Amino acid sequence: MRATVISEPGGPDVLAWEEVPDPRPAAGQVVIDVKASAVNRADLLQRQGFYPPPKGASDIPGLECSGMISEIGPGVEGFAVGDHVCALLAGGGYAERVAVPWQQVMPVPEGVPLDVAASLPEVACTVWSNVFMTARLRKGETLLVHGGASGIGTLAIQLAKAYGSHVLVTAGSDEKVRRCLDLGADEGVNYREEDFAEKFKNRADVILDIIGAKYLRKNVAALATGGRLVVIGMQGGTVGELDLGRLMGKRASVSAAGLRVRPVEEKGVICRGVVQNVWPLISAGAIKPVVYAEVPMSDAAQAHRMLESGEHIGKILLVR
Amino acid sequence: MRATVISEPGGPDVLAWEEVPDPRPAAGQVVIDVKASAVNRADLLQRQGFYPPPKGASDIPGLECSGMISEIGPGVEGFAVGDHVCALLAGGGYAERVAVPWQQVMPVPEGVPLDVAASLPEVACTVWSNVFMTARLRKGETLLVHGGASGIGTLAIQLAKAYGSHVLVTAGSDEKVRRCLDLGADEGVNYREEDFAEKFKNRADVILDIIGAKYLRKNVAALATGGRLVVIGMQGGTVGELDLGRLMGKRASVSAAGLRVRPVEEKGVICRGVVQNVWPLISAGAIKPVVYAEVPMSDAAQAHRMLESGEHIGKILLVR
Repeated sequence: MRATVISEPGGPDVLAWEEVPDPRPAAGQVVIDVKASAVNRADLLQRQGFYPPPKGASDIPGLECSGMISEIGPGVEGFAVGDHVCALLAGGGYAERVAVPWQQVMPVPEGVPLDVAASLPEVACTVWSNVFMTARLRKGETLLVHGGASGIGTLAIQLAKAYGSHVLVTAGSDEKVRRCLDLGADEGVNYREEDFAEKFKNRADVILDIIGAKYLRKNVAALATGGRLVVIGMQGGTVGELDLGRLMGKRASVSAAGLRVRPVEEKGVICRGVVQNVWPLISAGAIKPVVYAEVPMSDAAQAHRMLESGEHIGKILLVR
Repeated sequence: MRATVISEPGGPDVLAWEEVPDPRPAAGQVVIDVKASAVNRADLLQRQGFYPPPKGASDIPGLECSGMISEIGPGVEGFAVGDHVCALLAGGGYAERVAVPWQQVMPVPEGVPLDVAASLPEVACTVWSNVFMTARLRKGETLLVHGGASGIGTLAIQLAKAYGSHVLVTAGSDEKVRRCLDLGADEGVNYREEDFAEKFKNRADVILDIIGAKYLRKNVAALATGGRLVVIGMQGGTVGELDLGRLMGKRASVSAAGLRVRPVEEKGVICRGVVQNVWPLISAGAIKPVVYAEVPMSDAAQAHRMLESGEHIGKILLVR
């Protein structure tokens, strides 16, 4: 098969579409004939050599895909050759075929085209596991989403609204803030022009954060009493100052988590939660996948440049 | 009635046993004829002027008491004059009488002498709310308790063991570590001689911490995957460095909370949880209240000196 390999650490041009050995399904795995994959910020780090794949994972980038099951290993439950599926991957999505544990495979939500389904696994699993499973966002509570126009942001806004929350967002331009409001967000801040910690002070019951250290003090300021800050990205650095006195005054918490390194069983629990709680809202039209662009699978460099420009709203797909 | 008043911010000698007006029960309150109170570290801070009582609370120190109900205001549920009770207070315990919302009042656990019952409300409510309600310590998990020989520590060890956890402790002397092991702790570190972060690295599912900033880095090092650090005291400062990268690598969380400023309803939920889940273990003898000394109520200065010396193991009571 052909796949995108990282010829050496570097810029987008190190991505090469090449002939590589076909994946074989190990016990508990299925092989998917990939229709589409999607680019994630972690892929940019991996390309630059900063985010090596976890032990046992493919060297080929790509954390999610959609496609048709073409082969099934022993011990797989609930799937058959020919099924249209999407999947959360530990790597290997930028390819014609990929092997993945069946626990990380999900049916395509009813009514969603097969290519568009590749935009869903990472954002749905990330938002469901962090905002709903970990931070337990409840109806009537307020969620603050940083990067509201990102893939994760656009789904977080819609899912939180569908569950009856008040949604605050930050984004990097007035246009992006407008798009977030169109998706259902109640209030937005263009962080280049306004201080979100000032505007949303003491109001957020849950914060979904992708910035990390740089926002730690401001995020604690924005938390309400009993608030939960969930850090899923560290675009603004890893080591920050935490004022425990302020945290205690609010009886608040800070947690941090990623998806990629979790054990297969945990990913399975998350995927089943997503199929049960998120897919029906997508099929009913209450949540719309937001796709910014479809780029040919063989030209991953273009998709990476697009993601790095920061101008996109929603997901960028790689499609065959 | 007589009560201990803080004549001015300062050392133990500013505590004076004086005639003050009797408390009257407001709606939803009972008045307790106090048999005993207990000293808490927060009382030392309040005496020094660093920890003013929350709005509406008594200026008289004392966060817990035991005694007999002598008067009942309108709208009180489940209590009658003559009941032997203990209570979580927002203040006012160093006195002959104290008024308190009925939600914060608990029956004396069967088999516990009335004076000894004053040793229980703060430690039981603190450990139950933080370790079990917030951090959800589960059977088979490992709890690390800092200050294992403190009032909170001695109860945390016994309660966690009763619920089937593995318990690690730190304490300030070999003698204190030994006492913790006698109470059921599985492993202990004398923190003056050994680095707990080294010894307990990556092992604690839950940490109950009273040090704050000074231990933040070490506590994160001691957390296991999925670990929860709960900060309930800041004897080592309030502002510390948090490595979000390391937290993310462990999918861990940091939370901080106090009891005193919570709304009456939340305190009520905690007290009911304690009566249901902790009192039966005390009555059955699985958990023993640990009382270090009983000091006459009129001599709070002596009790404060004793607590400041740091030599005690368990609680110091003020008894009439």
